[in-house]
Amino acid sequence: MSVQQVLIAGQWRDANQSGTFRADNPATREALPDEFPVSTWADCDEALTAAVTAAAQLRQKSGAQIAAFLEDYAARIESRADDLVATAHAETALPKAPRLADVELPRTTNQLRLGAAAARSGSWAQATIDTQAGIRSCFGPLGPVCVFGPNNFPFAFGSISGGDFAAAIAAGNPVIAKANSSHPGTTRIFAEAAQAASRATEMPAATVQLLYRTSHDDGERLVADPRTGATGYTGSRGAGLKLKQAADTAGKPIYLELSSTNPVVILPGALEERLDAIADDFAGSCLMGTGQFCTNPGIVVLLAGDRTEQFIKAVGERFEQAPVGTLLSKSVAASLESNLSALQEAGAELVVGGGAGTGQGYCRANTLLRTRGETFLANAAALQTEAFGNASLFVVADDIHQAAQLLSHLEGNLTGCIYSHTAGQDDDDYATVADPLRQRVGRLLNDKMPTGVAVSSAMNHGGPYPSTGHPGFTAVGMPAALVRFAMLQSYDNVRPARLPALLQDKNPTGGTWRLVDGQWTTADVG
Amino acid sequence: MSVQQVLIAGQWRDANQSGTFRADNPATREALPDEFPVSTWADCDEALTAAVTAAAQLRQKSGAQIAAFLEDYAARIESRADDLVATAHAETALPKAPRLADVELPRTTNQLRLGAAAARSGSWAQATIDTQAGIRSCFGPLGPVCVFGPNNFPFAFGSISGGDFAAAIAAGNPVIAKANSSHPGTTRIFAEAAQAASRATEMPAATVQLLYRTSHDDGERLVADPRTGATGYTGSRGAGLKLKQAADTAGKPIYLELSSTNPVVILPGALEERLDAIADDFAGSCLMGTGQFCTNPGIVVLLAGDRTEQFIKAVGERFEQAPVGTLLSKSVAASLESNLSALQEAGAELVVGGGAGTGQGYCRANTLLRTRGETFLANAAALQTEAFGNASLFVVADDIHQAAQLLSHLEGNLTGCIYSHTAGQDDDDYATVADPLRQRVGRLLNDKMPTGVAVSSAMNHGGPYPSTGHPGFTAVGMPAALVRFAMLQSYDNVRPARLPALLQDKNPTGGTWRLVDGQWTTADVG
Repeated sequence: MSVQQVLIAGQWRDANQSGTFRADNPATREALPDEFPVSTWADCDEALTAAVTAAAQLRQKSGAQIAAFLEDYAARIESRADDLVATAHAETALPKAPRLADVELPRTTNQLRLGAAAARSGSWAQATIDTQAGIRSCFGPLGPVCVFGPNNFPFAFGSISGGDFAAAIAAGNPVIAKANSSHPGTTRIFAEAAQAASRATEMPAATVQLLYRTSHDDGERLVADPRTGATGYTGSRGAGLKLKQAADTAGKPIYLELSSTNPVVILPGALEERLDAIADDFAGSCLMGTGQFCTNPGIVVLLAGDRTEQFIKAVGERFEQAPVGTLLSKSVAASLESNLSALQEAGAELVVGGGAGTGQGYCRANTLLRTRGETFLANAAALQTEAFGNASLFVVADDIHQAAQLLSHLEGNLTGCIYSHTAGQDDDDYATVADPLRQRVGRLLNDKMPTGVAVSSAMNHGGPYPSTGHPGFTAVGMPAALVRFAMLQSYDNVRPARLPALLQDKNPTGGTWRLVDGQWTTADVG
Repeated sequence: MSVQQVLIAGQWRDANQSGTFRADNPATREALPDEFPVSTWADCDEALTAAVTAAAQLRQKSGAQIAAFLEDYAARIESRADDLVATAHAETALPKAPRLADVELPRTTNQLRLGAAAARSGSWAQATIDTQAGIRSCFGPLGPVCVFGPNNFPFAFGSISGGDFAAAIAAGNPVIAKANSSHPGTTRIFAEAAQAASRATEMPAATVQLLYRTSHDDGERLVADPRTGATGYTGSRGAGLKLKQAADTAGKPIYLELSSTNPVVILPGALEERLDAIADDFAGSCLMGTGQFCTNPGIVVLLAGDRTEQFIKAVGERFEQAPVGTLLSKSVAASLESNLSALQEAGAELVVGGGAGTGQGYCRANTLLRTRGETFLANAAALQTEAFGNASLFVVADDIHQAAQLLSHLEGNLTGCIYSHTAGQDDDDYATVADPLRQRVGRLLNDKMPTGVAVSSAMNHGGPYPSTGHPGFTAVGMPAALVRFAMLQSYDNVRPARLPALLQDKNPTGGTWRLVDGQWTTADVG
């Protein structure tokens, strides 16, 4: 069997390889047939050199030209939907429908089209014009962006199809994609469609490039290379922190989404009012996709009392009755097992589950753990171990003040939720916990589980370290996600004809938002 | 003589000290009388704990309340102007007038008032409202900000008076200021005024705190402490990179301004047209403040030819005729001497200067070096050694293509300038060098030296590494500078009354710019 080819400088060609790998079908635990190369540094080096040329060429393209590429690509994805869904299902065991075909694929093409709209409008660049000082500034493309995609969203966060890809391209940068090793075949199909779209819309040859895998050392070298502009990474904390250190040392921006336990606080009045509905909500959110969401509710804070005991019982029943889903890979299953052990060693007790799953594929029983507020406070770091998968830890606090105290011991998270009585009887308690929770999360929710991540201009899919590497940026939501892959560029006394179109007196599209002398406007200057 | 007190938790008190230091008068090389403490970790620890309390209290203050503090502080600075100018002059040897009294002091109070205006309007927070998705977001304060100020602007970049301070406070954060050891007395006066303003406007006790010096280890511990929100640093690259590593490892944002050689490209037509005027411009810019500006033009790129030789001669004459200024400190003088040696070892040749200065204070002769494009390309890293002070390196390229090539070997810089003929005869050459220069600098100038840094909304006083730590942020210019000290906070389905004022339907000031369903507006929602 021949080894799959990498996409470098616009050509599919044999990799410079140090070895090969195959992905597993997690539902059967058997290796899939296709063989993929592990690239040596030679491939990274060629891709970087080609990307520098592409970056310079892309800087000469208009937002409309970049938009045309993204839209053409989105259409090609739709025309290959069956192939993508079948391949991703085989590689991840995620359900074909509704998940892959009806939810994740439309989300993916929607993101690409929102990226196109952002590129076309140019408003994302925050063009700022000070007519009195003769100074104008905007965000501009930064250079080649390396994207490392996660295992859990083969489409919507994929290295050559997801939000980081769409944002990096829309901001005017070429992308070097590193496939996730658990779904290389899916990534290959995306790369074929992207490359076809790139040719059809006359993009530079190396606008999109694909490597399947590198050594860890070469990955670190890649993000730190002088030719690299920035990196987007979604994945495990351990691997991400190594890349972060390499990029930080080289002074290269890196945007990471690393881990999150997504605390949910459920106040007494909410349970009094709608215990069963919240138990349904929670079990649905926690077990959806076998719990393999970045925003999976991994820690629930409750106040001690009878209703809390009823709630724990109700959730436990739902966990036991719910089917056991298949996990994404052998390593996800192994990590879940060891992290559940770590939580129990740190003082958490099993409510339900904990053992092996009953399925044929990689799996683990739906697992609910509990602990007391006091125990949590005594061992807060270990009890925040992320058990990525179909599991959650309930922390029962003595009272609202202990709840607030334990929230102040939380690491940075992507999300935090508070459920409260709709008629206001929890409002004092809400006030006690909202501020400490707010400062530790990127997105604060009310009366709603965190697993839905709307592609909204107001979304923050980000948060304080270690959920991400910087609390000021979102990975989801156009146009805010673009600015991560841009540099601030000021023009001081630069002659009018030499300014980029975004900064010339005439509004470049007639509808681009620009901050002119302190006022946001779509009008021409002067 | 008693040792000066530190300002912690709203109280002036004796430091927990490991030793003391005194600043020098650089004009006389003699130590000044006041003795200042080197704080131990105990002071840092107390300041951090107090700052966390202040941060929570500040989150309850309105933008208008924060603005009132900044404005009151600015007025108090003006009422202590004579004292500030006299002390800063003694500690830095910078001229009292116009520099300190007529330029830097008004710039400083202007920045504080612009920070106040930004806080009052709230537009800096980029409030974004998606009415359909029920999601709203804005930037919000991040927590205690540590500010390390540089030696060269005791007012405008001072740790308790400068741009980082104004931006951090305006964004709603308390500041822990670490004085620059070369002007502790100046910093003390600012802290007195700030503390008086804080009391008068009923700010939290630890809104502003001051330490004079810590060990390097404690400085690194401070920026990495879990209680710290972010750090602003302006100073030497060596010390800055140590702080950066500590902050990066802890996942704490740090904004650094480290070093810059500020390349200036002078094209042949510009010399043909106005050689003497450019020589005047250049010598004035390079020698102003004895060359001790972050944006001092340290590298000039010229094309080989007779006019270039005339230009070098003309600048050399001006350098020899100009008075030799006093450097900020003994260590600045020692660094300048060793960096000039390093440049010569790397292949640069002296045109004028190079020796000891003739003044009574710390000084060095006005120094002009030159080298060839080929030499620069062979030794690009060493020939980019920043010689902070009254010195510059001219690089004579064989032709415009070699000039473009050597620009592509430049490190990241704050600024880059291109001088060209006003009638367009350099336009082809401009096109050749503009793109490589653009990608390596934060601010691109035409026909203008880089030393003026206007406090403009469109200013970028920032640039790619190693000029700063991140290419997306500016340290000068309101309101953009504020966002460095903020986190992105999204609210998903949060009940209307619980939203911050910035995100409620009613526009909080009647004039706050918000992005509502994709349109910037100052109107109410709905």
